[in-house]
Amino acid sequence: MTDQIKRIDPMITSQVSDMHVGYEMHDWAKQLFPINRSILGDGIRKTLSFISEKLDGLKIHEVPTGKKIFDWEVPQEWIIEEAYIEDAAGNRILDFNECNLHVVGYSVPIDAWISAKELQKRLYSIPDSPNAIPYVTSYYSRRWGFCVPHKLMSRFQKGNFHVVIKSNFKDGFLNYGELILKGETDQEVFISTYICHPSMANNELSGPVLAIALARWLASQRNRRYTYRFIFIPETIGSIAYLSRNYIYLRDHVIAGFNLTCVGDERAYSYMPSANGNSIADRVARIVYKTRHINYKEYSLLERGSDERQYCWPGIDLPVVSLMRSKYWTYPEYHTSLDDLDFITPKGLLDSFNLHIDCLSLIEKNYTYIPATLCEPNLGRRKMYPTTSTLIEKTKSRDLLDLMFFMRNGRTLLDLIETLDKPHDYIISLIDELLGAGLILRK
Amino acid sequence: MTDQIKRIDPMITSQVSDMHVGYEMHDWAKQLFPINRSILGDGIRKTLSFISEKLDGLKIHEVPTGKKIFDWEVPQEWIIEEAYIEDAAGNRILDFNECNLHVVGYSVPIDAWISAKELQKRLYSIPDSPNAIPYVTSYYSRRWGFCVPHKLMSRFQKGNFHVVIKSNFKDGFLNYGELILKGETDQEVFISTYICHPSMANNELSGPVLAIALARWLASQRNRRYTYRFIFIPETIGSIAYLSRNYIYLRDHVIAGFNLTCVGDERAYSYMPSANGNSIADRVARIVYKTRHINYKEYSLLERGSDERQYCWPGIDLPVVSLMRSKYWTYPEYHTSLDDLDFITPKGLLDSFNLHIDCLSLIEKNYTYIPATLCEPNLGRRKMYPTTSTLIEKTKSRDLLDLMFFMRNGRTLLDLIETLDKPHDYIISLIDELLGAGLILRK
Amino acid sequence: MTDQIKRIDPMITSQVSDMHVGYEMHDWAKQLFPINRSILGDGIRKTLSFISEKLDGLKIHEVPTGKKIFDWEVPQEWIIEEAYIEDAAGNRILDFNECNLHVVGYSVPIDAWISAKELQKRLYSIPDSPNAIPYVTSYYSRRWGFCVPHKLMSRFQKGNFHVVIKSNFKDGFLNYGELILKGETDQEVFISTYICHPSMANNELSGPVLAIALARWLASQRNRRYTYRFIFIPETIGSIAYLSRNYIYLRDHVIAGFNLTCVGDERAYSYMPSANGNSIADRVARIVYKTRHINYKEYSLLERGSDERQYCWPGIDLPVVSLMRSKYWTYPEYHTSLDDLDFITPKGLLDSFNLHIDCLSLIEKNYTYIPATLCEPNLGRRKMYPTTSTLIEKTKSRDLLDLMFFMRNGRTLLDLIETLDKPHDYIISLIDELLGAGLILRK
Repeated sequence: MTDQIKRIDPMITSQVSDMHVGYEMHDWAKQLFPINRSILGDGIRKTLSFISEKLDGLKIHEVPTGKKIFDWEVPQEWIIEEAYIEDAAGNRILDFNECNLHVVGYSVPIDAWISAKELQKRLYSIPDSPNAIPYVTSYYSRRWGFCVPHKLMSRFQKGNFHVVIKSNFKDGFLNYGELILKGETDQEVFISTYICHPSMANNELSGPVLAIALARWLASQRNRRYTYRFIFIPETIGSIAYLSRNYIYLRDHVIAGFNLTCVGDERAYSYMPSANGNSIADRVARIVYKTRHINYKEYSLLERGSDERQYCWPGIDLPVVSLMRSKYWTYPEYHTSLDDLDFITPKGLLDSFNLHIDCLSLIEKNYTYIPATLCEPNLGRRKMYPTTSTLIEKTKSRDLLDLMFFMRNGRTLLDLIETLDKPHDYIISLIDELLGAGLILRK
Repeated sequence: MTDQIKRIDPMITSQVSDMHVGYEMHDWAKQLFPINRSILGDGIRKTLSFISEKLDGLKIHEVPTGKKIFDWEVPQEWIIEEAYIEDAAGNRILDFNECNLHVVGYSVPIDAWISAKELQKRLYSIPDSPNAIPYVTSYYSRRWGFCVPHKLMSRFQKGNFHVVIKSNFKDGFLNYGELILKGETDQEVFISTYICHPSMANNELSGPVLAIALARWLASQRNRRYTYRFIFIPETIGSIAYLSRNYIYLRDHVIAGFNLTCVGDERAYSYMPSANGNSIADRVARIVYKTRHINYKEYSLLERGSDERQYCWPGIDLPVVSLMRSKYWTYPEYHTSLDDLDFITPKGLLDSFNLHIDCLSLIEKNYTYIPATLCEPNLGRRKMYPTTSTLIEKTKSRDLLDLMFFMRNGRTLLDLIETLDKPHDYIISLIDELLGAGLILRK
Repeated sequence: MTDQIKRIDPMITSQVSDMHVGYEMHDWAKQLFPINRSILGDGIRKTLSFISEKLDGLKIHEVPTGKKIFDWEVPQEWIIEEAYIEDAAGNRILDFNECNLHVVGYSVPIDAWISAKELQKRLYSIPDSPNAIPYVTSYYSRRWGFCVPHKLMSRFQKGNFHVVIKSNFKDGFLNYGELILKGETDQEVFISTYICHPSMANNELSGPVLAIALARWLASQRNRRYTYRFIFIPETIGSIAYLSRNYIYLRDHVIAGFNLTCVGDERAYSYMPSANGNSIADRVARIVYKTRHINYKEYSLLERGSDERQYCWPGIDLPVVSLMRSKYWTYPEYHTSLDDLDFITPKGLLDSFNLHIDCLSLIEKNYTYIPATLCEPNLGRRKMYPTTSTLIEKTKSRDLLDLMFFMRNGRTLLDLIETLDKPHDYIISLIDELLGAGLILRK
């Protein structure tokens, strides 16, 4: 009992943090924003270098070009020095230096004069969003192209143009960052985010900066029950590479996982379930949304589009969910230059931070609890119950008894919250009181 | 087969009894009404003495003061000789002899002159029910007090008063009665009721008088399949004491249980499920209500308030339900002097009696049945089917075949009633006919 | 893998057949229509002889009169030479030779003059359907009678009548036909239909002619995965006789069964589930109806009335369903002379044929499938995916990935169709494509 009582108040509590954390995350995003990232290369390495300044113990790994990873192969690195389009008069009417979205990712080099008609075939724009530069890549099929706001398309209607892309490809490395915060057990909570997008903010700098903030918060806590694994990877090829090295260990140790993406705006709340649909991660997500009275949209796995495609693939089967704000594909700024530092806000980031803190706290406290007594305990002599029998009041005393009454069938904290259908923080406070009084045991 | 056929007609049949039983129960309640009961003491002993006159074989047990029972301790007995309040002129304006609800249960002794202001703190009344004397106890915290109809509160507004409670406490015994009616097996049906309330009728004399009637009816039957255990206890402390002595045996032998409380009025029907929610007791309760076309309110275990709090506590887990009329807490007369012999009626008691008889009969017949033939039997040659094939009629012949058709997957009588969704007495009559014809077997 | 790929395209495909098959079935029904069938006798033998001309390998079995079969006994054969009613003037006002429904099946012989009043007791008609001759039998109780259109009842109001039935009974045989088409495994699909009705068309010649067509189609296919067993029996007594000889083998080998009855009209679609309710046969039935956008009525087993009464009897438990058009009992022509060759149509028969072909094809392809890769495969390098990342399109590429994503938890083809809720033929085409690309495995 002594041992149990001294552990009553685990270090992880879901207190809401102040705005300071939100401003800090937004500032990190601002510093990371200008870097020209792609799935491999210097952009990723600069980003990982920034992250390692914030996170002690971050390890940077590399997987060489050509390495076979499941059904895939690590591609070459793509280097781009400059890229522009000039008109016949020598006016530079589009320049990669002004926005790194202007060039299709992994474009092959070109230096040629071509007609407007030919150029048209190489331009990507969005008629419905005339100010937006779209984000386009072509990793696995060699081509070149430029991305332009649709309102500028008129400039490319006639004449000849000088198109220049000084790019090249070389064998190199796929890099990713990994931080492991050891806990009391080697069971793990897995948190993944991706760092392969050039200058965009919600998708995707919001994910990495939230991951940094969560990792720093966890690192500052005293007794972690679970081990926490954070990874910062390029999307798809990175998760495939990471899984090819680690999936058996992960499959045996991960009890819950979160894919951090699109967590910085204030427009909506979204939830992408795991393939299981009722894993611990799924359940804490739904509980926290409910306690916080947040209206959210639950998506079907048919709408999946981020690294859960790999984490939840049959045979991998990690219990990974995403708690997003505006989900990728669903907001008009998605994958364009309009997904910028104004679209994400300190408050949006902070709210996501607090949501995830709530989830992690619940997971840490998700023990099985059982009453220490057979039959109701005598709450009266412990000053936990009214001493006269007047008409029944639905007081905390009653809630304490109800909570103990439903501690059966191996119910854990999550089961009890779901059964009693009350806010999780209130249930946690009751459990702490019962543990303190020695009236329940934790298994 | 011989053995099986001779057992076709078990002794327990659900024939509706005549009003005589209702009047008898009401008369017993009338005789028990004046006794001043509390959780321990002479009131309980007088009550048990009355019950043992009606029930051959009732054993009266005792548990001494100070005995530890799970998280509790058996308290001292409370003896009260007299109690009253006099005004300055010597007028006795409230007297325990007129109604034993006037004194807070387990009041400590007092003999003093106090001001109206001081007295106010010691008075309990119900502003919304000005004629009712409330029922208040303070078993586990020593205090004193009086209970008065709110309409009399004006008499205590000014002046000084002489308050007298001649009570004392002494080591003694917690008493309870127990009757065991042996059946063919040592599996048990458990029936509990409580006898710790002073002069009130629905809660609680209705429970004990129904228990007496049910026990007498069972004792008069020839072949009981199950053993029946009746206990008459003080509420809460009594069920805890009883369980501390018997819970392991009960856990291993009780297949269904009924907590008899609030079974005497005609105003409503109520059902409190067991913690399992789908035990045999729960299922017969719902079936019987349905067959009898009774509208009833099913309560949540969050509304539990009687001894099911202990019987269904995790680790005890007895399958105990309550089939009540107006549930405790829900009727305005509850726990007041208005819950009197007019509130309960012979008809109300009789209807509860018949409901419980139905439940017990169903439990007795709840065997697994299987067809004795592979493929449909030839009902025609047994004169159980029309001999010409004209248009199909939904006759009893068809019901016989349907009933046999669904005798699969280990279905018991309760399963068959639920599957076919027909009145339980009709299904029982079909089963008796099929058993008689040797067309089905009972396991 | 080689072995797996070469099996990609199983022989059974659900291509819709042309009307030719419908006309062929209707023509067979026309040829079989005039035969006077009963549960035993020459009518059945003539019918089986016709069927064996169409089906190579059909074996005709016999069970002798008096043979005990479960709770029943094979009856005698009933021979009828002629039957008529004459009025006092010698006018033959009703003659068996004009319609074999005119005589109650299994009528005992009679040759007598009786009064109109006596005759009335022996006449069966349907007041609500004055043109219909009802179909009446009395197999297990010896009596005699005539069936007449209600509009002719006025002719039997007064005078005396000469009633003649030249029938007799003799020991003989219950005959049935059985065709077994061997497949790769000895697991079986069981198809039963009955041939005991005299001149009626939907119930029942539609069943036998559909069974012939299905058997011929299956016999023409190259590689059958499953073995197919067709039986042509008299209803009830025939299925009981058949089961008494074969039920243990069937119980161990039948994975799905279809009872063919009432499959020839165009008025409705009906579905009688198996007792299990979710067997493979049930699931393919519901899937095929859904893919074909067919509104159908699902009946309860309480409405069962054909040989599923025996096949689904507890202890027999064959997973047999019926996919009917207008179900027996539900259409006014049922069991009357109005259920004739106009009531069934080539199109009605063909639609039933195609429905059953779809079901059988699905069963043949109902393997468990799993992805051959861990993580998503690289569809791009296989030219199965768009090569640039623009806005997501819900293309076939996406469906291919979705399909693989849900290949988990041992899901079979049926599970996948149900999970993705898309037409079964589309899912099958995707699976064939994935098998062809080596991206999934079949177990």
